[in-house]
Order: sequence, then C-alpha cells, then structure tokens
Amino acid sequence: MKDRIYIKDLKDNIGKEVVIDGWVDVRRDHGKLIFIDLRDMSGIVQMVALPNHEDAHKIVDTVRSEWVIKVRGIVNKRPERMIKEGVLNGDLEIEILDVDVLNKAVEMPFDKEDNLNIDTHLDNLPLTLRSEKHRAIFKVQARVIQAFREFLQSEGFIEVQIPKIVGGDAEGGAGVFEIDYFDKKAYLATSPQLYKQILVGIFERVFTTTSVYRAEKHSTTRHLNEYTTIDFEMGFIKDHTDIMAMEEKLLRYIMNSLNETSVKEFELLNADIPKMSNEIPILKLREAQEIIKKEYGEDCVDEPDLEPQHERWLSEYAKKKYDSDFIYITHYPVSKRPFYTYEDENDKGFTKSFDLLFRGVEITTGGQRIHDYETLVENIKKWKMDPTKFEFYLQAFKYGMPPEGGIGMGLERLTAKLLNLDNVKEATLFPRDLNRIDTLLSK
Amino acid sequence: MKDRIYIKDLKDNIGKEVVIDGWVDVRRDHGKLIFIDLRDMSGIVQMVALPNHEDAHKIVDTVRSEWVIKVRGIVNKRPERMIKEGVLNGDLEIEILDVDVLNKAVEMPFDKEDNLNIDTHLDNLPLTLRSEKHRAIFKVQARVIQAFREFLQSEGFIEVQIPKIVGGDAEGGAGVFEIDYFDKKAYLATSPQLYKQILVGIFERVFTTTSVYRAEKHSTTRHLNEYTTIDFEMGFIKDHTDIMAMEEKLLRYIMNSLNETSVKEFELLNADIPKMSNEIPILKLREAQEIIKKEYGEDCVDEPDLEPQHERWLSEYAKKKYDSDFIYITHYPVSKRPFYTYEDENDKGFTKSFDLLFRGVEITTGGQRIHDYETLVENIKKWKMDPTKFEFYLQAFKYGMPPEGGIGMGLERLTAKLLNLDNVKEATLFPRDLNRIDTLLSK
Repeated sequence: MKDRIYIKDLKDNIGKEVVIDGWVDVRRDHGKLIFIDLRDMSGIVQMVALPNHEDAHKIVDTVRSEWVIKVRGIVNKRPERMIKEGVLNGDLEIEILDVDVLNKAVEMPFDKEDNLNIDTHLDNLPLTLRSEKHRAIFKVQARVIQAFREFLQSEGFIEVQIPKIVGGDAEGGAGVFEIDYFDKKAYLATSPQLYKQILVGIFERVFTTTSVYRAEKHSTTRHLNEYTTIDFEMGFIKDHTDIMAMEEKLLRYIMNSLNETSVKEFELLNADIPKMSNEIPILKLREAQEIIKKEYGEDCVDEPDLEPQHERWLSEYAKKKYDSDFIYITHYPVSKRPFYTYEDENDKGFTKSFDLLFRGVEITTGGQRIHDYETLVENIKKWKMDPTKFEFYLQAFKYGMPPEGGIGMGLERLTAKLLNLDNVKEATLFPRDLNRIDTLLSK
Repeated sequence: MKDRIYIKDLKDNIGKEVVIDGWVDVRRDHGKLIFIDLRDMSGIVQMVALPNHEDAHKIVDTVRSEWVIKVRGIVNKRPERMIKEGVLNGDLEIEILDVDVLNKAVEMPFDKEDNLNIDTHLDNLPLTLRSEKHRAIFKVQARVIQAFREFLQSEGFIEVQIPKIVGGDAEGGAGVFEIDYFDKKAYLATSPQLYKQILVGIFERVFTTTSVYRAEKHSTTRHLNEYTTIDFEMGFIKDHTDIMAMEEKLLRYIMNSLNETSVKEFELLNADIPKMSNEIPILKLREAQEIIKKEYGEDCVDEPDLEPQHERWLSEYAKKKYDSDFIYITHYPVSKRPFYTYEDENDKGFTKSFDLLFRGVEITTGGQRIHDYETLVENIKKWKMDPTKFEFYLQAFKYGMPPEGGIGMGLERLTAKLLNLDNVKEATLFPRDLNRIDTLLSK
C-alpha cells in the first residue's frame, strides 16, 4: 500500500488514490450506500462504500464507531448540491476501495459528542476526551503554554525544572499533601515560589511550567488538587510595575499566537479570543473597593481581600469602562500576602503585589519580593515560622539577591476562562479532586 | 540614570557611557586601582575604579564577591597588550563613574568556581549553582528540552499535561512513594506511560515533559528519586522501528540545535556535542551478547538483560565499529519488560522494544505497545496484576486504539552524559535522594 496521508491534505489530492488512517467517527447505513466519517489527528472526512466494491462494502458493513481502520480510496469532488461550505473537506468525499480493520471497539455507551454531565464525562475520559470539543480545549491549552515559553525565551528567560517533593510547607497557609519519604516526612509543593527566587540569584530570569498541589477539600468549579502553574521570576526590577508590564506583554503575545493558530477552536467552543487593544487598567485594592461601593452598592471598603462576587464586579467594570477583559488590582495588605511580599515604603501596610482578574476570576498573583536578607528573616518570624527551616532558601539572599519579582498563573483556570468553560475540570485532562483519581475513590 | 544594558551588548557601545547591573564575580584590589569582574545573565566584564572618581572608588573599596551593584561607567577599549583574545569583552573595560549597591552579600565560605566535592556543592546550591560551570549545564539542559518540544511540534505532536498523583503503581516493579490523599492512599507516578497511551487514542501523537518518582534506595551516580522524563507516544505505526526512526530524527534535531546555540557551553565543560553523521546501529539483545562474548570475552548470552558493564562495552563497540555515540538494542525478552510491551510475532518470547545506549548508559526505553484489548487484559493477569485496577486505562483500548508506541528519556541523565558529568545530580538543579531534600534529612 501507499504511504498514509493526513485528512487535512486530502484537498490537494482530488481525483487521486490515497491511503488514510483513522477512527470511525460516525457511520450512516443507507443500505447500498454506507457513509463513514473518518477522523484522524488532522481532521475529518466523509467516505462512502459503494456496492460495486464488494469486499470493501462487506467490511464497512461491520465497522462501528471508534473502530480504527486503514482505507484506500479515491478523492472525489462532491456534486454541487452536496457541498458543505466552510467545512473541512465539505467539497469532497472518499470513495472506499479497500478497508483494513486495525482495531475494533466495543459498542459506545453514549454519543461522545453529546453534552454529557460532568461525572459521566470524568468516568469515561479515555472516550469522552475524543470529542471535537474536548480535543479543541487541549489544543488551545497546548498553544497557550507554547506561547508562554516562546515569549519568555525571547525575553532572555531560561526554563528551569523545579522539584515537587519538598521538605516543608514553604509558604504557610495552603493545605499540603504528606508523602512517606523513606520513613521521613516530605510534602508535595504548593508552589515553585522559593525555588524560582533562588534561581533569580543564579540566572536573573527564569520560567517554569510545573505541577503544584493543594490538599484542600474544596469542591468548586475553579479549584483542583493538582494543577499546572506557569511562572516567571526576574531580577533587577524597579518595582512590581515592571512585572505587570512584562505580564501584559506576555498576554499580548499569547493572544496574538491564539489569533494566528486557534481561531477555529475558539469558534467551535463559542468563545472569543480577548482583544488587548487597550492597556490593562490598574487599581489599588482600596480604589477598587470604593468603585464597588459606588457602582454596585456593596461596602467592602475595610475588607483585606476581594470576594468572588467583587472580582466579578470589577471585571464587569473594567469591560464597561475600559473595554478590557483584564484588570490589575494592586496593594493588598501585608497581612493577606505571604511573608516574602514587598511592603510599599510609600504606602505602609500595603504591598507591591497584585492580582490579575480576567473575566471575573483571579488568574495571576504576582509582585515584588523582599530581597534583603534581614527583612526576610524578620518577616519569617513575624509570620510565626522558624527561620532555621528556611536556611536553604535564605542562602540565596545571604549571597546577594537583586530586587526581584514574578508571577504565577494557573494554566487550567486560564484555559477555562479563555474558552468560557463552566468547570476548570474540563480544562484538565485528568483532574484530581477530593473524590476522584481517574476513578471514584471508595469511601 | 539611563536604562540598563546587558553585558553582552557592551561591545556595541565602545566610548559610550552605559549603565550595567550585576553581581561582583571577583574583586582585585591593587590599591589605587580596584578591579571588579561584573556578571549578569548575559556575560561578564572587567571594570576598574580609578582614584579620580573618588565617591565611586570609596564604594568599590567596600564591595565584595556576590554583592549586587548598579554601575554607571564608560566603555573603554583596552590597550593592545591587555587584550584577551577569544574572551567576551576581552578587548574592553568599564571605567566606573558611579556605583549603587543594590544588595550586599556575606563573606563567601569558598570560591564558587572551585572544584567542590558533591556534598559541599549540594549543601550550598543557591551559591554553588552560580558558578560558570553550573550555569552552563542548565543552559544546555534548557536547550535540550526546548529542542525536544520544537521537533515534536513540527511533527504534529501535541503537548499534554500528565498527573503525578496516581491511584496505584501502574507498571508494577518500581518502588513508589505513598501519599496521604484525604485519608486514602495515593501514589506518585513512576511514569506517564499509561496516560500517554490513553492520549494516543485522543490525539494520535502526544509529548510531555513531566516529573516522575522512584522510591528506590539506590545511591548511585546515575539515579534520582525525582527526575524529569521527556516522552513521546504516537499512533498508526508499522512497528517499533517507526519509533526508533522518529527518535533518531529527534536526536539529530537536538544535536543540530546544540551546535547552533551551545558550543561555548560545551567548550567550557570540555565536552563534545555528539556527531550524528551515521545511522544509529541496531542490534538485537542476543546479537549484542554474542558481540560481548566475542569482543570482550564475557559470556552473558543467556542473560535476560544487560549489566552496566555490558552497556559500556556495547557503546565502546558502537564507537569503534560504527563511529556512533548511540546504539539501539532491541528484542528484550517478554519477561523483562512491562505488561504492555508488544511481543514480536516473528520472534516469540522477545519484544518489539528497545533501549538506546549513549556513551555507556541507557538513556531511553521505548517500543511498540499492545493495542489489542483482550491481549492486554490477558497480559495484566499473566503479570499477576488485577485488570479491574486498570479499568480506566483499559477504556482507551476498548474504544479503539491504533497500533502505537513511544519512548521515555531521562532529561537529567541525558544532560549528564552529553556534558560528561560524573554524577547525574550535577545535572539536576535541586536533586532529591535518599538522604537529602535540599538539606540533609535528619536520621
């Protein structure tokens, strides 16, 4: 047999004999004519088995959804009245000459393209992820992470591999998973934060894409117990505004890249790629709270943080007032941020830190970090932690650390908000939660 | 002050006033003249403080190694007799006008460029990783992983994020770390294998760069308890030779990329980028054992696997006979490979699997996998495991899986062998082993 070609390349082979491989997406039996939509990684095409190719017709009569087949056929132009405009291969059809069954499949328990409830989806991921919708989600996710790396490489950042097994809960606060480590206790990292900072002392500019873990018993549509964080950290900054500017440039790059590569996926998912024509607006937390009070009538002015409803309002406000899908909120109080956060010398009690809100949800936390050794040690004590447990990390500051800062962004949450998915689990290939590691955990 | 420029760009600014930031690499006090080598992410440059710039000279008199400073100065050509050929900025020198101390450092416990023993290195990573040698290692590593992704993207592979928290020990055999997962037991993944295979059913071609875990009490120079595996898996293959060909193409791409970007790092580390002018030779295990017997006089012909010494001999043989740094060994016996490995129908008892040896060590394991559901279930039973524990994975095969296969490669081990490092821990930013998670574990 000839070499296989991809379904996306059929349009260049009208009138020719070709070999294609793939999964039977749908089979429609019209008696003498049997139609099969064949799917490979590159696209989908309609094929027809005619009774005059007797052997092929006999085999096609037995195949069912998700069977894996190899087909030899002729690429025919469709008659004018059968052409589907704007659809890949909508103007052609394969006339099947030969079929080879590479693998069978059991009967489908449901149509994988149906709008399944989340539990059915999760119980059957090896099948349900094959749907057009779910493949599109993860194609977009792969583009986002690729664009993230490309941009940071172009800005001189170096990729680093960060451990997930750690000796203690670095940041304090977040729930941690405990590991039995050769009869000693170790933990799963809740963040690459402390390692990123050490690495600024070595490489100045670093980025990482890594898994982090939260042993929290939340069961919301926006939390996961294991997720991918995309992080950068950079030295020699003026203050947190350098970090915000770098992130804004990064987001512009990502959105440009999605516009170049993923328009079809966004259309399929009925979502819009955010436009970034304007600068991202910036508000201090206290300014934001005044706006909430004035615009939405809720007085949260003395609160140290934003509630989910506040974040939704501020996003709405940013869209209305600045036509922006993004808004930065800065200057959270010292008490609500981790020990390493830089206090604003001109606005005591508040930090040079920020959250980035996107379509109603916080997708990034970032800011300037303390680079002075003594201040850091003092803060660890103020946070009621033991500096001796941070000795390894503190070396980086003992031996000369420039002013520095960075961000972390949850890849799955970003994907979900980009694509208007209801649940962040839909933007995670194999989500782990309180009740589930692939299959439901027994009680 | 003006904007900072990078040290690598000084050569374009001869005669001009510039601002540069960085770490004091070395300081040499000649009384009236004080020299500083300043280091940033892009390079290193010699600076001189002259007595006529009194304020600057006074500050430079106080600075020490690893202090972080901002310098305003003039880029001067060096006098002819002071030029160092072939060294970045060997022909210029900065005359310091102003100095700003951004951060101090405590006194160095040793010279970071010294050849330290591995324990001193590991105890002081936030400092010792700043050495020229160690920064070069991780620059090369970042290039390798970047080239890996670029090549696979160009071949239509999609990047996927694979969970590290798993419900059981997937492969059987390897030691696993146990996690306390909401009062239930979970484990750290020893491999992305089963997920990669599921994902072939969804995307046909996938790759991942992910952490894996081995709870093994080895204390060798080539094992780690947490390491990064770079993996691909692809569908619609003829057999394992398609995988070997794809890997060979990948390695060529990586070596080309290193030749374009990393020659200086290899020179610094006194290592050679492998030439891949010839095809990688391929031997069946039994052929390899015959060669060992004939060439090296050891009879291991009935052994089911290769010992480390055998791998070294075969690499030596490949170099001598084929002028190749790489050699494939195929057809390991069924009994020595995981349950999902494809048995060669024309060579019963042996598998369509392979190892890739590189400079004396196995760096890849790969092969064709079983894609037939019934065969897979049978094999799980033969391997004395319980098919019900594999129900999630098995869905992928129930619902139609093409013939497929792939490889996994340890990033740190590959880096170490590329750069002739004695210990794989030197190719790991923050290695975890039996005794150490950043700091030594107490007994």
